[in-house]
Amino acid sequence: MDQLKETILEKGKILSPSILKVDQFLNHCIDTELMDAIGKRFADCFAGHGITKVITIESGGIAPALMTAVHMGVPLIFAKKAVPSTMTDPVFVTVHSFTKNMDYTLCMGRSLIAPGDRVLFIDDFLANGQAFEGIRTLLEQQQAVLAGAGICIEKSWQPGRRIVEEASIPLCTLASIASMSPEEGITWNLDHETC
Amino acid sequence: MDQLKETILEKGKILSPSILKVDQFLNHCIDTELMDAIGKRFADCFAGHGITKVITIESGGIAPALMTAVHMGVPLIFAKKAVPSTMTDPVFVTVHSFTKNMDYTLCMGRSLIAPGDRVLFIDDFLANGQAFEGIRTLLEQQQAVLAGAGICIEKSWQPGRRIVEEASIPLCTLASIASMSPEEGITWNLDHETC
Repeated sequence: MDQLKETILEKGKILSPSILKVDQFLNHCIDTELMDAIGKRFADCFAGHGITKVITIESGGIAPALMTAVHMGVPLIFAKKAVPSTMTDPVFVTVHSFTKNMDYTLCMGRSLIAPGDRVLFIDDFLANGQAFEGIRTLLEQQQAVLAGAGICIEKSWQPGRRIVEEASIPLCTLASIASMSPEEGITWNLDHETC
Repeated sequence: MDQLKETILEKGKILSPSILKVDQFLNHCIDTELMDAIGKRFADCFAGHGITKVITIESGGIAPALMTAVHMGVPLIFAKKAVPSTMTDPVFVTVHSFTKNMDYTLCMGRSLIAPGDRVLFIDDFLANGQAFEGIRTLLEQQQAVLAGAGICIEKSWQPGRRIVEEASIPLCTLASIASMSPEEGITWNLDHETC
């Protein structure tokens, strides 16, 4: 998606060969025009897949996921990283964050997903695939179907894509990075930009 | 706002005289049609106030704040409750949560707000006004103007409204609850629904 890739090149900051900072437009300050276009693109990409709900993880994925859900006309659910005091019947899964080098518990209200729901997972990044695996496990517990994954930025040298493909889940990636460094910038992986 | 109030009556759960659970449509599962209407209402309400950015706090406020920012055509910033590893130059404030009975640190990247920015604060609830005070302090540190506050649900017996009014900040409330209980339901405070 050219609009996203141009914004990454203009406003993203490559902190190291593995860390891209996108806080100016994607996961802290939100470029609303870009986010609306991203939501429309994911909605178009997964039209015809019978999606009944969109899911993401707080808080980096909420903006692209909400715009996708708005364009698809379905509800959005965001899984939470801490159990709210008002959550009475949660489902849980433990997820490892390689970025933060720690485990965290992902949870959601059991009643929010029904058996047979066809759920689209949207996230800002795909790297090690742990968030994807966590969501897949949460949905399995509720006999719902993970019907697709829409990712804004993929780090294609990390195992996330392989994990999604091995699960046979349709994957749509808007910007796929083959490699990056502060000195040499970004090399795109055009083969993976399937959306 | 009738659409929000009808949804509260239909899907909200009154857990106690002070706790209203709205996870079915507002802050865990998001009713996207309702959220789009809420964003449009806030955008209409604050049209002509010269708003340059919308701000909220992760993660309950992100959905109504994003839809407001989309309808206003301005960026959204969400202040974070933990400092990300990639945040290099944050501004901080300590906020007390009466709901959780604990203090937390609110932070944001210094560069995201410029002096003179006119910022609209959007949140899901107004109760004790501590989130509002935290955002006001963060913006003051950056010489930006808090130009308005848009609140989905106000608990009007708590001190939040007084704090906003004493700060002389324009306030728009979509649903104002005078009192509530599991047995007797909700009594609305129609005088406070100014939007």
